[in-house]
Amino acid sequence: MEQRTYHMSPEEFRRLGRQVVDWIADYYERIESYPVLSQVRPGDIRSRLPADPPAQGEPFADILRDLDEIIMPGITHWQSPNFFAFFPTGASFPSILGDLVSSGLGVQGMLWATSPACTELETHVLDWLAKAMGLPEQFLSTSTGGGVIQDSASSASLCALLAARERALDYRGNLHGLDGRLVAYASAHAHSSIEKAMMIAGLGRENLHLVAVDDSYAMRPDDLARLIKADRAAGLTPAFVAATIGTTSSNAMDPIRALGEVCRREDVWLHVDAAMSGTAALCPEFRWTHDGLELADSYCFNPHKWMFTNFDADCFYVADRAALINTLSILPEYLKNQATESGAVIDYRDWQIPLGRRFRALKLWFVIRHYGIEGLQYHIRRHVELAQQFAGWVKAHERFELMAPAPLNLVCFRHKAGDEFNERLLTRLNESGELYLTHTKLDGIFTLRMSIGQMYTEERHVVAAWEKITRTAAELENEG
Amino acid sequence: MEQRTYHMSPEEFRRLGRQVVDWIADYYERIESYPVLSQVRPGDIRSRLPADPPAQGEPFADILRDLDEIIMPGITHWQSPNFFAFFPTGASFPSILGDLVSSGLGVQGMLWATSPACTELETHVLDWLAKAMGLPEQFLSTSTGGGVIQDSASSASLCALLAARERALDYRGNLHGLDGRLVAYASAHAHSSIEKAMMIAGLGRENLHLVAVDDSYAMRPDDLARLIKADRAAGLTPAFVAATIGTTSSNAMDPIRALGEVCRREDVWLHVDAAMSGTAALCPEFRWTHDGLELADSYCFNPHKWMFTNFDADCFYVADRAALINTLSILPEYLKNQATESGAVIDYRDWQIPLGRRFRALKLWFVIRHYGIEGLQYHIRRHVELAQQFAGWVKAHERFELMAPAPLNLVCFRHKAGDEFNERLLTRLNESGELYLTHTKLDGIFTLRMSIGQMYTEERHVVAAWEKITRTAAELENEG
Repeated sequence: MEQRTYHMSPEEFRRLGRQVVDWIADYYERIESYPVLSQVRPGDIRSRLPADPPAQGEPFADILRDLDEIIMPGITHWQSPNFFAFFPTGASFPSILGDLVSSGLGVQGMLWATSPACTELETHVLDWLAKAMGLPEQFLSTSTGGGVIQDSASSASLCALLAARERALDYRGNLHGLDGRLVAYASAHAHSSIEKAMMIAGLGRENLHLVAVDDSYAMRPDDLARLIKADRAAGLTPAFVAATIGTTSSNAMDPIRALGEVCRREDVWLHVDAAMSGTAALCPEFRWTHDGLELADSYCFNPHKWMFTNFDADCFYVADRAALINTLSILPEYLKNQATESGAVIDYRDWQIPLGRRFRALKLWFVIRHYGIEGLQYHIRRHVELAQQFAGWVKAHERFELMAPAPLNLVCFRHKAGDEFNERLLTRLNESGELYLTHTKLDGIFTLRMSIGQMYTEERHVVAAWEKITRTAAELENEG
Repeated sequence: MEQRTYHMSPEEFRRLGRQVVDWIADYYERIESYPVLSQVRPGDIRSRLPADPPAQGEPFADILRDLDEIIMPGITHWQSPNFFAFFPTGASFPSILGDLVSSGLGVQGMLWATSPACTELETHVLDWLAKAMGLPEQFLSTSTGGGVIQDSASSASLCALLAARERALDYRGNLHGLDGRLVAYASAHAHSSIEKAMMIAGLGRENLHLVAVDDSYAMRPDDLARLIKADRAAGLTPAFVAATIGTTSSNAMDPIRALGEVCRREDVWLHVDAAMSGTAALCPEFRWTHDGLELADSYCFNPHKWMFTNFDADCFYVADRAALINTLSILPEYLKNQATESGAVIDYRDWQIPLGRRFRALKLWFVIRHYGIEGLQYHIRRHVELAQQFAGWVKAHERFELMAPAPLNLVCFRHKAGDEFNERLLTRLNESGELYLTHTKLDGIFTLRMSIGQMYTEERHVVAAWEKITRTAAELENEG
């Protein structure tokens, strides 16, 4: 047969790979010149793309040109130091390089045998992080539990809920014909993924019972205990509590120890979602947020948020790996192999929803080794200092006010002129392109969120943001 | 405050990025020198890693050294042209570069507003593929449906099952207190992810009813119709059928049109999983496998298998996007924005399990533009030709036999000496490191799978594999 190829050769890849690396370096060097929030309108990007795919291959230079001309205007710059919206998602250069190696190797980590290093480095690096963060013993792979990388805290929380559901149902995997209802608990400030997980698991959103919060928007253990008691009295089966270390709205810290004591007493699975704030536990002075975690059944945090690791990388830990594996394991003939049958290895496909998996431990390994724990701590502390500084400015300003405690690096604040004014303020700030903020509602009040965790954010960016906010507010005040 | 940084500078990234690009090019140039299946034993890799993470950062050269010395022996080389195991997972250079740009941009595509280009390019490229593959109109974004990138066919099938469950339950999102049981259907040859999805969705593995197969291991529409009728008579609610275009075990082609007619008549959701073989539809002569797809409610295929795109990239299409969105949408205050409220945009977080999402359309865009449809077709046709050639050799050999039809690029075969002999043959072949094959069981018989779809597999690799197989079999025969 004829031997032909449309593949890019390794030599071309060397040349074009350098171009792309330089393109990325250039991007970071000029990133502050872009409007942070993309200013395009719906349909703008698609309207510039050809209706049909190319029949013949095109030169790589054309793709890079269109990347600049068509795609870049539609980018919201999450890696800009002026990105203060949502929670950040880090993409440090070491993590990009780790991920590039992962792309290059192109291995699957669904079974130990399909690339032993992919599984063993993952187990090892998750143990490293557990040690560096002072996580309790039960989450180490050398105990009854262990860690696994998930794509996101949403998926980790879903896996936790499923394992809790199955533990409560003795692993029958089926909700049909149950005598009682299973119920779960969280505060209204828990991440929306908990409610979504309830629906996916077939448990129903209405069976997520909302626990009252205190003045700092943290879950009240006494209310949790009360609800569980009432639900049991009503013939329901309490099965799952989702607590949060650092809620999305306001960075509230649910009191893990007191909640854990209730859960232990009531034999209810306690899952702790520390997606954003978990990384803070690398610094001993912030570990108070994790106090009582030894009472939890599962825990997750996202290095892809605040640990300078590009999406996706959520670290999910369970205290009892058997509960998770019993929930998610299915072994068809075509995946059977000697290593699995020996029982001496971990097959991570049994720890997650999908079968396939990327070699994501590489980027964590690159990040931890490049920064060292010391380097990670330094930048986390800087972000917290900057947020505290910002909170001080808000407090000292006569027209602005803080809307919630700022325990770490998220500041909830607003102008005193009311919801409509703050909505206009937010729109005008984001349209300026100079910074990007998002909002929430606290006790029904429209609240601005200043989220400081983008890797390259320095004091000058926070100073400029505050100046822009106060100046724009003054303009709006003058406009009446 | 002191200004310090542990971050890698853009200049360092330029230098080290080139090193990593060269490392990958070198890897591909020498990939045939590695044993395809890693030969390490459980624990070998971990035992070489330090027990604790580094307190201080380390030079990048040390990381690359350990990558070579510690990690590489634990790699099973999925990108080797001698990889004939499972199904392949492509990682072409253009896809690696597209993914590198995605890592560099580090944007989130959960909402249109969080990077409009991420959403619009995804919608557009999925429409491109639908057109190039001749998929029915209902899967285009311009109709009632549309496409979305999922991490894997497992997740796509789960989303399809959830939408089917919810359509059957009028979107109540809750299985408690149902009158009847919901049931689903697949053949025993459907992917294991269907059974896993049943458990995740709370429907129970035992409510996946197995439809009989014909001689080619394809689902029998008459048996499906019979089962549905019997289940309805028993008071159950048939809700979901999972058909497969190219089963994992033997590449069997379920007859979509006939199955679809049963599903339409019975008002049951038809999901079609073409994870591996879907890519073949890029070639008109292989589109018979997709005949009747206009009767399906959802469809998925994996460019990360056979379309030279690195994991993860599953393209998932639905005919009725409202059913999917009604199933998975939750909108907390902190995600509200003007674009979403206008209704003029797609927010892909409502089309998937997790909230966060990478800019994965970039790598598809790079692949399609680099190869053109012509280039993709060329390599797919070559793989099919090579598999047909291999099947011919098996048929012509007196000691080997085909175990199933080989419609495309998977050949199921075995030596006539029985299960135990074939198991020993497989072990010896894989231990040689010269190639990697996996097995399945067909009608209880241990069967070898020759899966030809790795990008760089050429005629010489298939010839060498067959020589190695027959030579090793002869050795084993002589050993008695």
